[in-house]
Amino acid sequence: MPAESGPAVQDFYPEHLALCYGCGRLNERGYQLKTRWDGDETVTRFTPEPYHTAVPGVVYGGLLASLVDCHSTATAAAALYRVEGREMDDGGPAHRCVTGTLTVRYVRPTPLGPELEVRGRVVSVEGRRVTVASRLVVASDVTVEVDAVVFEVLENFGATR
Amino acid sequence: MPAESGPAVQDFYPEHLALCYGCGRLNERGYQLKTRWDGDETVTRFTPEPYHTAVPGVVYGGLLASLVDCHSTATAAAALYRVEGREMDDGGPAHRCVTGTLTVRYVRPTPLGPELEVRGRVVSVEGRRVTVASRLVVASDVTVEVDAVVFEVLENFGATR
Repeated sequence: MPAESGPAVQDFYPEHLALCYGCGRLNERGYQLKTRWDGDETVTRFTPEPYHTAVPGVVYGGLLASLVDCHSTATAAAALYRVEGREMDDGGPAHRCVTGTLTVRYVRPTPLGPELEVRGRVVSVEGRRVTVASRLVVASDVTVEVDAVVFEVLENFGATR
Repeated sequence: MPAESGPAVQDFYPEHLALCYGCGRLNERGYQLKTRWDGDETVTRFTPEPYHTAVPGVVYGGLLASLVDCHSTATAAAALYRVEGREMDDGGPAHRCVTGTLTVRYVRPTPLGPELEVRGRVVSVEGRRVTVASRLVVASDVTVEVDAVVFEVLENFGATR
């Protein structure tokens, strides 16, 4: 039973920044990940498909990297609202972040089948730079640990170099 | 024009370890990545689909993490043949590795459209532990830098904890 509740960060991404294959609500081919607060932690859940395999019985590490990537950017965006003393659903300007550096430690194989839970906490917020630490939990075991340095997007992100 | 030639590492993975979503030749839903030597570097190429987007015009970071993950494990396997003074297609036992730690630095947005080229080199081989450094190149620009610590799989990998 999920402990988290409330709005999902990704539901407030501006439309032109809501096409991400991992977490864009407007990407019909994507995973449409959702990230919510659970107290001082953020939570993202996903159940892999049978073909998301690395070796038999084990989830593909690239999928896990994808999950924790989007989870980290969402956690950073969620943190920026809190720093401002705002709720993400207050109708004000939305926060949207992208990853600078992602470090993924695969501490044990992640079993394929059960729902995966990614839990994150905000380590620091320095201007538009947010550091997030997360862990992937399945059936009470931590299988992946993640450190991410994330940046709020500039308005022209992706438009030019 | 690709400079690399010769056999692809993934074509020699044992059948029961050739189901990876990223690089398993037996995963019909996957990317079926192929990694080859080009001198002392390894090369993996992939052209993303239009829906593999992060924000408009930019490739999804989770996909990039997936590419460099499989590229790193393949580079490590390729390195293990060379350490033994073997060719990967000599009919002897095949090498197969999995990622321990993957560090991905997104140094600039990766444009969506052109073919992506991942180039890797072997930093060290210590028993079954291989360190690989790679970069993702698109239209002559490096957009992602990667460090990976990779391990040759044990025979019972994934079968138990």
